Amino acid sequence: MPVGTTATVKGITPDQLRATGAQMVLANTFHLHLQPGEDLVASAGGLHQFMGWSGPMLTDSGGYQVFSLSSLRQISEGGVVFRSPRDGRLIELTPEKATRIQNALGADVIMAFDECPPFPASQAQVQLATERTYRWLERCLQAHERPTDQALFGIVQGGTYPQLRRQAAGSLATLDLPGYAIGGVSVGEPGELIAQIVRSTAPLLPWGKPRYLMGVGTYREIVQAVAAGVDLFDCVIPTRLARHGAVLVRGERWNIKNACFRADLTPLDPSCPCYTCQNFTRAYLAHLWHCREFLVYTLLSIHNLTELVGFTSRLRQAILADRLGEEFGEWLSPAQGLESEAILS
Amino acid sequence: MPVGTTATVKGITPDQLRATGAQMVLANTFHLHLQPGEDLVASAGGLHQFMGWSGPMLTDSGGYQVFSLSSLRQISEGGVVFRSPRDGRLIELTPEKATRIQNALGADVIMAFDECPPFPASQAQVQLATERTYRWLERCLQAHERPTDQALFGIVQGGTYPQLRRQAAGSLATLDLPGYAIGGVSVGEPGELIAQIVRSTAPLLPWGKPRYLMGVGTYREIVQAVAAGVDLFDCVIPTRLARHGAVLVRGERWNIKNACFRADLTPLDPSCPCYTCQNFTRAYLAHLWHCREFLVYTLLSIHNLTELVGFTSRLRQAILADRLGEEFGEWLSPAQGLESEAILS
Repeated sequence: MPVGTTATVKGITPDQLRATGAQMVLANTFHLHLQPGEDLVASAGGLHQFMGWSGPMLTDSGGYQVFSLSSLRQISEGGVVFRSPRDGRLIELTPEKATRIQNALGADVIMAFDECPPFPASQAQVQLATERTYRWLERCLQAHERPTDQALFGIVQGGTYPQLRRQAAGSLATLDLPGYAIGGVSVGEPGELIAQIVRSTAPLLPWGKPRYLMGVGTYREIVQAVAAGVDLFDCVIPTRLARHGAVLVRGERWNIKNACFRADLTPLDPSCPCYTCQNFTRAYLAHLWHCREFLVYTLLSIHNLTELVGFTSRLRQAILADRLGEEFGEWLSPAQGLESEAILS
Repeated sequence: MPVGTTATVKGITPDQLRATGAQMVLANTFHLHLQPGEDLVASAGGLHQFMGWSGPMLTDSGGYQVFSLSSLRQISEGGVVFRSPRDGRLIELTPEKATRIQNALGADVIMAFDECPPFPASQAQVQLATERTYRWLERCLQAHERPTDQALFGIVQGGTYPQLRRQAAGSLATLDLPGYAIGGVSVGEPGELIAQIVRSTAPLLPWGKPRYLMGVGTYREIVQAVAAGVDLFDCVIPTRLARHGAVLVRGERWNIKNACFRADLTPLDPSCPCYTCQNFTRAYLAHLWHCREFLVYTLLSIHNLTELVGFTSRLRQAILADRLGEEFGEWLSPAQGLESEAILS
């Protein structure tokens, strides 16, 4: 799922997004609550109508953002009070409020409000957060006003502690939810640790229900998670990389700023079906970059999204043909070198 | 003609540009010479191929930019030496070189290299520039290597002095050029003075050849110039306004930042056929603006271009129906208040 935090996948129109092959889009409860507010979105007919996206949508609950973006915050059993990063006013988010906001936004999938512990964190600290996340899930389910047309997914926390992940997955599985997410990864752990968490947690979630790995990922993270049984992902990488001039080409990461592209009259990827590759050369994209023309962000985003969505399609085909190991084996081992480290601010 | 200075109309793709109804696009010799250089564009197959625009194109000669953007410059009969605003290196532009660069870029219409005097300037100063512009035109014609597939337009200078404009137009008209431009307006004169220059100069140019008013304009400037017999315009207004949050709606200029749009669930202009008006509300555009999402520049540019191109289409229809005065009379009088003053940096 491409990320459309503020009800737009940065720099591209819904038409351009559809052409990338993307099926489902993620938007953000925290950001949309602050601006423009869920009441406006509801009065516009809901998020799909507001942003012009007719396909499936998911909103995350705001839990992750509260814990990662807000400096001044107070956590209690009731919920979280924090200062808005926009204007400094005090805002309270509770499981009930996060659910009501998501009911108003109207995405097809909504997420339970969770407490996302940082990395690193002590086992005791993570245990408290994980248990609270379960109690908050029960309150979200209680508050959910549109259970027939919005699927509420629960989130497995547990940090890097296998025992806590097992407990959390086990208790969530008893609730027969429409879908299950693995949260609290991609908050700073090494790539191999993420892979371990996913490998040990995903199999504990009910077969036959979608499994969603939040905030992932790179080529390798995706392949490893798919091999572990994960179905859904969201990540800002394709669009954020684009804004840094980075392009994903057949499993590699290049940068359009590099001198070698200045006079290169081939497409980014001659085999790529995207609008960018069908119409423009590397030299033109490099030229736009050097002129600081923001069309380059649009064109690189279109390519990166098409590439990563296409990559997941090939993964799906490989699974259906029972050839995952043969075709994606290179990605199933741990990364060599710096590949999986966060290069993104 | 929408302006695509660096081989892109800022923030929109060629597909989106085509959908606005725009037929011809302008690009800039000065900027493209500095980056990426005309040799690269030529090796890419020319400007159309390089930027993915299959419709007609025009390049201006760089004269205006040399005089408006370069601080350190030396003008002589031979040409102009100036420091690149990109990297400070010394660059020389002469009539021959400007023509050769445009031959390499490969636009359908290319412009003579001219000396564009500032406003205000003394009559003696403007007379020297105007006479030099004529001599430089002769050198451009001499240097022009693709006269069969690139139309070289001459430029009438003369500042705000009717006598100099008349002389310049008269001598250019003897040359039987494929088209004629009125240059040196929109360099800081009041709107009414621009209208006077155009009214007195346009009729002196040969009937049956296209007349191009450079760097114009607003609704009113366009109507007044069309009434004086002008056929072609170029202006950054639609896209530059968009980047300031300003929208053109049926002859008016609004700003999407205004509070009144925050909860306004109607399109910018319900009668506008553009992608923006067909898919998004004012409230959504305001939301994007308040989130600093650069998609808003794209969407407002699409609308503003569609609006202004549509406006010129309605002008054309009115001329064919012999109803220009009836339908556009309100625009034929001088502007009241600040409308025609440059609000753009």
